[in-house]
Amino acid sequence: MTLEKSPWQEAAEAKRQAILEAIPKKWRVERIPPVEEQVDVTGGYIHQYLSPQEIEITEADAVAIASHTTLGEWSAVEVTEAFCHRAAIAHQLVNCLHEVFFEDALEVAAGLDASFAKTGKPTGPLHGLPISLKDQFHVRGVETTMGYVGWIGTFEGRKDDPRSKVAESELVRELRNLGAVPFCKTSVPTTLMAAETANNIIGYTWNPRNRHLSSGGSSGGEGALIALRGSPAGFGTDIGGSIRVPAAFNGVFGLRPSAGRMPYEGAANSMDGQNTILSVVGPLATSIRSLRLLFKAVLSEKPWMSDPMTLALPWKEDLDTETQKLILASNENPGLLSFGILHHDGVVQPHPPVKHALMLVEGMLRSRGHQVVSLDPRYFQAGHEIATKTFNTDGGEDLLRHIALSGEAQLPQCFIQAGKQSNATEIAVLNVQKRLYQKAFLDYWNNTSKETGTKPIDAIICPVAPHAAVRPGQFHHTGYTSFVNVLDYPSAAISVMNADRSVHKAEDARGFLSEVDKRVYLEYDAEIYHGAPVGIQLIGRRLEEEKVLALAEFIAKQLADLQL
Amino acid sequence: MTLEKSPWQEAAEAKRQAILEAIPKKWRVERIPPVEEQVDVTGGYIHQYLSPQEIEITEADAVAIASHTTLGEWSAVEVTEAFCHRAAIAHQLVNCLHEVFFEDALEVAAGLDASFAKTGKPTGPLHGLPISLKDQFHVRGVETTMGYVGWIGTFEGRKDDPRSKVAESELVRELRNLGAVPFCKTSVPTTLMAAETANNIIGYTWNPRNRHLSSGGSSGGEGALIALRGSPAGFGTDIGGSIRVPAAFNGVFGLRPSAGRMPYEGAANSMDGQNTILSVVGPLATSIRSLRLLFKAVLSEKPWMSDPMTLALPWKEDLDTETQKLILASNENPGLLSFGILHHDGVVQPHPPVKHALMLVEGMLRSRGHQVVSLDPRYFQAGHEIATKTFNTDGGEDLLRHIALSGEAQLPQCFIQAGKQSNATEIAVLNVQKRLYQKAFLDYWNNTSKETGTKPIDAIICPVAPHAAVRPGQFHHTGYTSFVNVLDYPSAAISVMNADRSVHKAEDARGFLSEVDKRVYLEYDAEIYHGAPVGIQLIGRRLEEEKVLALAEFIAKQLADLQL
Repeated sequence: MTLEKSPWQEAAEAKRQAILEAIPKKWRVERIPPVEEQVDVTGGYIHQYLSPQEIEITEADAVAIASHTTLGEWSAVEVTEAFCHRAAIAHQLVNCLHEVFFEDALEVAAGLDASFAKTGKPTGPLHGLPISLKDQFHVRGVETTMGYVGWIGTFEGRKDDPRSKVAESELVRELRNLGAVPFCKTSVPTTLMAAETANNIIGYTWNPRNRHLSSGGSSGGEGALIALRGSPAGFGTDIGGSIRVPAAFNGVFGLRPSAGRMPYEGAANSMDGQNTILSVVGPLATSIRSLRLLFKAVLSEKPWMSDPMTLALPWKEDLDTETQKLILASNENPGLLSFGILHHDGVVQPHPPVKHALMLVEGMLRSRGHQVVSLDPRYFQAGHEIATKTFNTDGGEDLLRHIALSGEAQLPQCFIQAGKQSNATEIAVLNVQKRLYQKAFLDYWNNTSKETGTKPIDAIICPVAPHAAVRPGQFHHTGYTSFVNVLDYPSAAISVMNADRSVHKAEDARGFLSEVDKRVYLEYDAEIYHGAPVGIQLIGRRLEEEKVLALAEFIAKQLADLQL
Repeated sequence: MTLEKSPWQEAAEAKRQAILEAIPKKWRVERIPPVEEQVDVTGGYIHQYLSPQEIEITEADAVAIASHTTLGEWSAVEVTEAFCHRAAIAHQLVNCLHEVFFEDALEVAAGLDASFAKTGKPTGPLHGLPISLKDQFHVRGVETTMGYVGWIGTFEGRKDDPRSKVAESELVRELRNLGAVPFCKTSVPTTLMAAETANNIIGYTWNPRNRHLSSGGSSGGEGALIALRGSPAGFGTDIGGSIRVPAAFNGVFGLRPSAGRMPYEGAANSMDGQNTILSVVGPLATSIRSLRLLFKAVLSEKPWMSDPMTLALPWKEDLDTETQKLILASNENPGLLSFGILHHDGVVQPHPPVKHALMLVEGMLRSRGHQVVSLDPRYFQAGHEIATKTFNTDGGEDLLRHIALSGEAQLPQCFIQAGKQSNATEIAVLNVQKRLYQKAFLDYWNNTSKETGTKPIDAIICPVAPHAAVRPGQFHHTGYTSFVNVLDYPSAAISVMNADRSVHKAEDARGFLSEVDKRVYLEYDAEIYHGAPVGIQLIGRRLEEEKVLALAEFIAKQLADLQL
């Protein structure tokens, strides 16, 4: 007996097949081992498909690559081809791509090489650097489905729209100006409002370090692809944790900037026009310095001249320099740097690997004499409540409408519930609530000077989630990231370590902060989580991305030294 | 037969009486002449009540005053007392004050003088400068009614709220730090959503230049008081023209900054939490350089450290310098400066005095060789439509609720209509519409380089309203200001001239752009408008307040030279 496939299933399957077929035959993998046979597909495992030269190129970070390509030491074509190859393998291993446009990318790369040969100069600071893009950004020549079956063959769900495969998002235009080479678009969960990445087109995007686990979301394809070094760097978006969660879950780095720093113009979105909490664009990469390269490069394009939502705020050289000096001075006088730390948010206690990661960072800071102040969980819970309300103001209408386009099955990961629409007065009340929360938090931050005895803390350190890269269906609490979106503070996700079954034993039963705390506690399993990456966040004051990047780099460096 | 007064009428009358009684007896005016007897109460008329020294002090602009007070040449007490006296007369002539706290102000001034005597230094750049405040800002010791009878004796309508007469808005705190002396709060229309200033407490705020006419709104009390030199400078707010309209109507200057530059924290507001178009705080004064003094001084207080809605954007010294250099260079090479001009917005043609003011500015610029490009009205209309929709999203609920507190009579000036609430989806659609408008306008601005042949225009010049200071009940079209709020561009209102019955004859009948155009046309009357101030706007790119101020000063100076 064969079951009839519904039209949406057929459309999804055709699209899934088309993605695969966009991968050159020579790069197809005959057999993907089941997870029981091969849990971790990074590093040594994926190397089997690559030449030594490809490995050398793809394991360099974006800064190293750009230093070679802008000097003409590596050609744009060889770099692009290496990443196309590796991305092709990555997708076959973990389902991380929505669009594959290697041919276009190689053509762009050839153009860059020709230009370099002619002028002896790079096109821009990102000359020849391949860049992956979350499947919200429009790229000429390819579709944007954002995981919706109903968007296949349309422009954001609109049939016969002339912008289909023609429009290009502002960010993409700027990346091209900078010499970057967009080459693929990465997977997202249907609706974007999920912390795992799954949709009816490509299925589930698995965590490359441990294919039992999720790659996080909603920029899960970015996280997984970059962890597999199928891309040196890419751009995601974050409205509740969607850059930081996949960065942390995949052992890479990500920056959620404050709203208005990176251009969102001309990108697709969920719940477009909901402006209580704005989704923001930010980079993911394999090093903090690569995040800085991308962030700074995009700002050099003055995106505010083309995107009305971007603030006229160039890269703040002075804040960067000031922070670098502060870090340097703190070698002699460690009291100069101080941090707030959130051990738990009063709702869910972190799993043992996350506790360990926090302890490691805290211990490292304390051992160097820096001040670390414990923060009050109550200031964090309130933010999450506002975020939850905000995401549900339209009662799920936008998401349901896009799902209804094809009649596709709904996926369980989405954390939006169908319900009543809020009216203007209710939204206004929520906006006031948000402002009062922002004010209370700002005062709280300023008042930490009483605890440090000198000045307010420089940054906040806290978990990204209660767990390392999570087991499918077990992401129940986004409170560790969503409050940051309500505050609109910049936050960097920093990769710290991997869960280790021999170290991170399940804890004995304890008192619980909430029902969800109990549930999360019970779901910990040292065996299954083994190898799962764990990251932390470093959060700064609003619009101080430069300081966050400098401090995050400082911490990442200390951690790297520690592990030597 | 005597009519019984309703409780709200009694409450309003008691408050009106209390305001008068807060004015020292020695400053009471026995007889206010009817308008038929005395149209213009500025200058010579008000001088009869003042000593030569008081006149000297009060006719200096804020910059001149601060230069004397910060050097100890004028005492804070003598300056404050002079302005208190003149403000007291002003209020009796045109009903421009809601709160009078001269005693507190004189105490603050005495403290400043004592501090100067002790240290030999001013407290800050605004040392001893009296500042008036629109009655949205909370000041310790006095009420905030915002014109609502139901707010009398409450905190924003809440009875027994401990913040009543205790809370102080962030801006006020900063002004005190800077050495300024808040001394009175100025009148606003009930609901704030009106371009004339009238409420059931103080009645109608008349235009001091011509008491047949309106002082504009919603910062009408500020405009009228400053025009009478009852205050050297003050702060208003603007969500649809509420700083620019009263500045222009009263022959003074005003700046509507982009959202996020001046602190709104802790101020009362209408429709708080409506965040499609944000109301903004900005200065009004008798010179552009005074606007700069206030704007720069407040930024030096780093308001973003206490107000989560203020952007971490200090005064941009570089943009100011760059613009000053551009202006200087344009003396030699006038092609360096270029302006867009909007002659009409496609909905309502300006009255003869406004046409004349525009022609004067355009002619002055052209005669100096600067480029002037005519702008397309269609780009302006769309903005006004979005503003109108935005202000009506809550169907008037917020305004009606505050009116209902006392059951007071509704006033006809408010341009909000009771109606249906928008839901979250409708608001999101509106927000997207707004962004698309902002994008189209930004592209349009950038494309003016095609018309100038060099670079895009530096600024836009356009009317503030279709008319000079308007006749009561005849402000029918706010489209000349509201599009700026949708775009969130900085705009300075520049005083240009006064209507003159011998020059500005009514035009012959002509074709009309709309019904409202016809209505406005028919309402022109050269006799009644005689003496009414006319201003124009100078609009810059978002967050470029420094450039707007520099260019506005340049134009104001040229106009002043012209009139010599």
